[in-house]
Amino acid sequence: MFQDNTSRTELGQMGEFGFIEHLSRSVKIHHPEESLKGIGDDAAVLDTKGELSVVSTDMLVEGVHFDLAFHPLRHLGYKAVVVNVSDLCAMNADPKQVLVSIAVSNRFSLEALDELYEGMHLACERYKVDLVGGDTTASRSGLVISITILGTAKKEQLVYRNGARAKDLLCVTGDLGGAYIGLQVLEREKKIFLENPGIQPDLSGNEYVIERQLKPEARRETILKLRELGVHPTSMIDISDGLSSETLHLCRQSGTGCDLYEDKFPIDPQTYDRAREFGLDPTVCALSGGEDYELLFTIRPDDYEKLREHLDVSIIGHMTDQASGVNLITRSGGSVPITAQGWDALLSQN
Amino acid sequence: MFQDNTSRTELGQMGEFGFIEHLSRSVKIHHPEESLKGIGDDAAVLDTKGELSVVSTDMLVEGVHFDLAFHPLRHLGYKAVVVNVSDLCAMNADPKQVLVSIAVSNRFSLEALDELYEGMHLACERYKVDLVGGDTTASRSGLVISITILGTAKKEQLVYRNGARAKDLLCVTGDLGGAYIGLQVLEREKKIFLENPGIQPDLSGNEYVIERQLKPEARRETILKLRELGVHPTSMIDISDGLSSETLHLCRQSGTGCDLYEDKFPIDPQTYDRAREFGLDPTVCALSGGEDYELLFTIRPDDYEKLREHLDVSIIGHMTDQASGVNLITRSGGSVPITAQGWDALLSQN
Repeated sequence: MFQDNTSRTELGQMGEFGFIEHLSRSVKIHHPEESLKGIGDDAAVLDTKGELSVVSTDMLVEGVHFDLAFHPLRHLGYKAVVVNVSDLCAMNADPKQVLVSIAVSNRFSLEALDELYEGMHLACERYKVDLVGGDTTASRSGLVISITILGTAKKEQLVYRNGARAKDLLCVTGDLGGAYIGLQVLEREKKIFLENPGIQPDLSGNEYVIERQLKPEARRETILKLRELGVHPTSMIDISDGLSSETLHLCRQSGTGCDLYEDKFPIDPQTYDRAREFGLDPTVCALSGGEDYELLFTIRPDDYEKLREHLDVSIIGHMTDQASGVNLITRSGGSVPITAQGWDALLSQN
Repeated sequence: MFQDNTSRTELGQMGEFGFIEHLSRSVKIHHPEESLKGIGDDAAVLDTKGELSVVSTDMLVEGVHFDLAFHPLRHLGYKAVVVNVSDLCAMNADPKQVLVSIAVSNRFSLEALDELYEGMHLACERYKVDLVGGDTTASRSGLVISITILGTAKKEQLVYRNGARAKDLLCVTGDLGGAYIGLQVLEREKKIFLENPGIQPDLSGNEYVIERQLKPEARRETILKLRELGVHPTSMIDISDGLSSETLHLCRQSGTGCDLYEDKFPIDPQTYDRAREFGLDPTVCALSGGEDYELLFTIRPDDYEKLREHLDVSIIGHMTDQASGVNLITRSGGSVPITAQGWDALLSQN
C-alpha cells in the first residue's frame, strides 16, 4: 500500500508498438480454435462455431472507480477483467475473449503497466479467457481502463433480465455489502496515512471486506453448478450497483414487482461488525453498496428443491405482480418501497 | 466553433439508467437477424451465422486525440465510429455492431451528449452498423470515448497485415496528409481566437483539409469495389498513424522490404498549399501526419490491370525482399531509409 515501483522504464521511449510487442509476449491463448487471430492486426478474428456471440464492455476510471493509493495495479487489472466476466455470467454465457484498452499518462512506467497486465493475465488464466486485442493510448491525467468481453452461448442457454414471473423466487449468491465496507476501511486508512505518514495502515481483522473490494471474483462456478443441477434461471443480473438497483432492473424489464426480506439478506459477520463501527446500517450497505459482483437471479418455485443443497445461494424474496411494486419487508414486518438510485458518481460532483 | 449549447439538462439528475433509456430510444438496428439483443441487459447477443467474428477497439481521449474547442461533439461522435469501421475495412470484414463506452465529467450536459451520440448515429446509418451496448460512467475531468466494433467475414475473405510478398504493388486510397494539415489550421485559428476573442475564425479556403480532420470517412466503398473487381489484397492496414508507420507494420509482419516513391504520393492541392504556408514539407505530412483513414494495401502485380480503372487508388511503391529495408525513393532519385516513429502522444508529455 502507498508504495512506488523500484525500477522504472519510460513508456514514451519504448514506443506504442514496442509496448504492444512487449504485451503480446505475455499473452496466453486458451481457445486456439476460437481465437483465430489476436493482438497485432487491425482487428481480432473469432470463430464462434455457430453459437451466439455475447459481448459486453466496462470502463474503469481513476478517481471514480478506483484510487491508486489503495488499489494495487495488479488487483486493479484482475478486477477489470473480473467485472466483465461477471457480466457474461449474468447472461449464462461462456466467456472466451477480452479486448483491453487503456489510457495512461506518463506518470506510469512500463513496470507499472506490467503489474496492471499481470493482474489481467491472472484473471484471464483463472477464467480461461484470451486477451485478443485492445488499444493503448496516452491520457493527460488519470488512468482509464476499458475492457470488452466476448463469449458464446447456445440460444436456449441465455438468461436475460426480462424473464421473471410473479411467484418466482429471488436468489443471490455469496454475501452482500462487503465490497462497500472494504472501501470504507481503505478510505479511513488512507486518511490516517495522509495525516500521519509514519503510521503504517493496520488492516488486520478487515481482510475479508478488503478482499471483496480489491479482488472480487465472478460467479462462474455458480453458473456451471446451476447447469449441472438443471436449474435454468428465469432472469439474472450481476450486482455491480447494489441489490436495490439490480432488483429494480429485473422487475422493470420483467414487468413484475418484488418482496425482498431483510432477514434473509446474506451479510458476512465482518461486514456486519465493520458497518456498525462506521455507524452504517448493514441492510443499507447490502441494498446500496454495490461492487459485490454476486449474481441476482430468479427461479421457478419448483426448482427450489434442486437448489436447496447448493449452500452458497440465498433465497431473499419472491416476485409479485407489477402493481404491488418493489418492497423491502423489514425484520419488524413493515413494508418499505424501494426506489431508484441516482447516478451517484455524477451527482457527487455537483 | 467555440460555442456552447443553449439548453442544458444535468446528467446527474437524470441518472445513468435514465440516460441509457434516453439513448436506447434513438438507436436504430440495421441487422435484426444478427443483432439479437442490444442495449439493456448485461451483454449484447449476436448471431454471426457461422461466419467469423472480427472485432476491434479504439479509444479517443480529450486533450490527446481531440480538442473540444474545435472538434464539434457531433463530428467527434461520427469520427469515433468511423475510425473503428476503418479498422474492419482494413481486415476486409463487414462491420455490423458497435459498443460505445464514454466517461464524462459533469461539465457535459444531456444536450452535449445527445450531439455526440447524434454523430455516432449518423455514422451508424452511413455504414449500416448497429449500436448494441456500452458503458456510461463519470470522469473527473476529460471526455474519453472507447468504441468496440464487431463484424463478420468469411475465412478466405480476410486480409491480414502479413501476406505481402516481394514484387507486390503498394496501393493507397484517396490522398494523404490532409487530416494533419487540417489540424494545423484549426490550432492556428484557435490560437488567434484565444488572443482576440472578437475575431471569428476564417476557415474559408481550408474546407477540404478541415473536413479531413473533423469528419473522416472509412473506405468501405473501396473494399466493396475491390471485391467486385475480384482483387484480393495480399496485406492491408488503415492509415491512422501515418504512411511510414503503417508501411513498416506491413513490412515487418510480412517479412518484406519496400520502396516508396515520393513522386507517386497522392496529395491534394489544398493540403500541398497549406503545408507550404506552414513551412511544412508535404511529403513529410503524408508520411507522418496520420489520421487520414485511407487504406494501404498490397496487390499481386498481375492484379494491377483490374485495378487501373479504379481511379481513387494510387500505386505508390512495391514490396522488396526484407534485406533491402524500407526506403523512400525521393523525387531526385535518392533512397532514404524510413524508420519507426516514437509514441508521440506520450513523448510530447516528457
